[in-house]
Amino acid sequence: MSDKKKVCLIGSGNWGSAIAKIVGVNVKKFDCFDKEVKMYVYEEMVDGRKLTEIINKDHENVKYLKGHKFTDSIKAVPDVLETAKDADILIFVIPHQFVPNTCKPLIGKLKKGAIGLSLIKGFDESEKGKISLISEKISNLLGIDCCVLMGANIANEVADEKFCETTIGCKNAETGHILKKLLDTPNFRVTVVPDTKTVEICGALKNVVAVAAGICDGLGYGDNTKAAVIRIGLKEMMRFCNVFYPTPRIQTFFESCGIADLITTCYGGRNRRISELFAKDPSKTFEQLEKEHLNGQKLQGPGTALDVVCLLKSKNKEELFPMFVAVAKIVTKEIKPQDLLDYLRKEPDD
Amino acid sequence: MSDKKKVCLIGSGNWGSAIAKIVGVNVKKFDCFDKEVKMYVYEEMVDGRKLTEIINKDHENVKYLKGHKFTDSIKAVPDVLETAKDADILIFVIPHQFVPNTCKPLIGKLKKGAIGLSLIKGFDESEKGKISLISEKISNLLGIDCCVLMGANIANEVADEKFCETTIGCKNAETGHILKKLLDTPNFRVTVVPDTKTVEICGALKNVVAVAAGICDGLGYGDNTKAAVIRIGLKEMMRFCNVFYPTPRIQTFFESCGIADLITTCYGGRNRRISELFAKDPSKTFEQLEKEHLNGQKLQGPGTALDVVCLLKSKNKEELFPMFVAVAKIVTKEIKPQDLLDYLRKEPDD
Repeated sequence: MSDKKKVCLIGSGNWGSAIAKIVGVNVKKFDCFDKEVKMYVYEEMVDGRKLTEIINKDHENVKYLKGHKFTDSIKAVPDVLETAKDADILIFVIPHQFVPNTCKPLIGKLKKGAIGLSLIKGFDESEKGKISLISEKISNLLGIDCCVLMGANIANEVADEKFCETTIGCKNAETGHILKKLLDTPNFRVTVVPDTKTVEICGALKNVVAVAAGICDGLGYGDNTKAAVIRIGLKEMMRFCNVFYPTPRIQTFFESCGIADLITTCYGGRNRRISELFAKDPSKTFEQLEKEHLNGQKLQGPGTALDVVCLLKSKNKEELFPMFVAVAKIVTKEIKPQDLLDYLRKEPDD
Repeated sequence: MSDKKKVCLIGSGNWGSAIAKIVGVNVKKFDCFDKEVKMYVYEEMVDGRKLTEIINKDHENVKYLKGHKFTDSIKAVPDVLETAKDADILIFVIPHQFVPNTCKPLIGKLKKGAIGLSLIKGFDESEKGKISLISEKISNLLGIDCCVLMGANIANEVADEKFCETTIGCKNAETGHILKKLLDTPNFRVTVVPDTKTVEICGALKNVVAVAAGICDGLGYGDNTKAAVIRIGLKEMMRFCNVFYPTPRIQTFFESCGIADLITTCYGGRNRRISELFAKDPSKTFEQLEKEHLNGQKLQGPGTALDVVCLLKSKNKEELFPMFVAVAKIVTKEIKPQDLLDYLRKEPDD
């Protein structure tokens, strides 16, 4: 990386814009960063004006983060290669299904030594029976190192500057130090840990646990059962890392990316909410409920559960993950929501 | 212990009665237990009848757990020595302030080899600047080993046989095995761990964290901040064990007594609720709010916070526990509820 790090953002949705707000302040604060941060914006028209134009003139993403101003460091760019080609640090914050097409124009075109930071949650599911991490996908496609940032970070609350914490997974201590500088604020406290994969897996699997938590809520099982579901879910997340991505640091599960994000997702969040509705009326499918209630947003939990269980089957490891298996079977209507409890009782001690 | 273990219950409130319901079934199920379980009941009159008489005739504690039947194994006894003198296993489930007086008649009178199981939450605060565990207090008073049982166990939900988990802390594996037999059911899943002290400390300190969580709710800080508070609280609980009761097993914090109980307490529970009210109107004291809203029940969080910080001061360890310190200062009105955030920002990395 060069002396003055040039930062760019690939993505400008709700979460991307909340992060842009922070980055726009921090690059001005520290000499080690170039003052201009390009942000890739998928061009669209808002009230007869181009979104990039609005952002560059009014310093506000009126479509996805209304009411919050960026500093003038943030420069919206409608072309992804133009955004990324000079960057030392690329922050990826787009829905995971857009990763391949968004990265394609960048292949072979990035600056030497550039690094990625993925804020994208979910697994790459392009091959059935195989799960790979989004950071690995980015890394493989672009030939760059890719760190991750995950935590209990509802975008609007971050934009409102309400106090919260987040976790960066980054193997290289020096890079971790720079990324922390770029993102840490008094109300967005960054902790850097070395096991990138654990951080990222927590961010994907929590949504499966949230489905189980929502089912509990829908069936009126009460606080004790819900706490048990969250605890067992965390154990299965840990076990999943142990089995498939050894050896995670147990401390990482105590970071914001671990228990904190799991808790918010199991008490708030759309995966929990739609699962509650499903448990109350299982005549509908998750797809139908998603269409009816999410206004175009997507559920991650059900799909991740199916992918995870597909992997577990192929490796003959299903009996180690009774809750994950139950969630997948409930999603496909192989079992009823209330059968969840029978599966929780099979949870192995370890 | 003799071949047929005789079990007794010291206490018959809401939680004691929920446990009596389980124990009454399990002693009948397993040959290793004597079929009669004496339960010490503080005698009182209910609708013109003695409570012991009602329990022994109708097999129901109409005062503290209405609508639930015990098996005929449960025998209410108004005298604590009569209850306990032949017992091999004594289950203590009374408010912690009653421990000394309740134990007094038993001193030197128990069966040789008898063991205790404490379900009592909170620290013994009889000496300022010193904290000791209730299980240690019982153990010292009566000269018996004392194990503990703690978990995400709201009494009424346990009585309703809703699925949940609990943790027994017990050093001796054979004793642990017997206690698990006595208490485990398909809807009350017992895990036994060897570090008794960690289990018990979690049960006391969670209420301090719940005060901070309630303050967050009262000030409308949102889900991200609340998740951060719970996470930081758990870290301080772990650090407290590490500093004062080394060396806890980190796995124990992942049991029901750890994260699960902490979560229920920070989302439900009276310590959270009263703290929310306090944050909304700090003109009142916690004592006033307790009197106005709890109908005679007691708050543990504020008192435990003061005791803990008294200990921290005497050992010069306050800077390791900014959240605990903040809670104590908020309780005594030395700082305002919204100052909590400044203390969270001081949380040390470890």
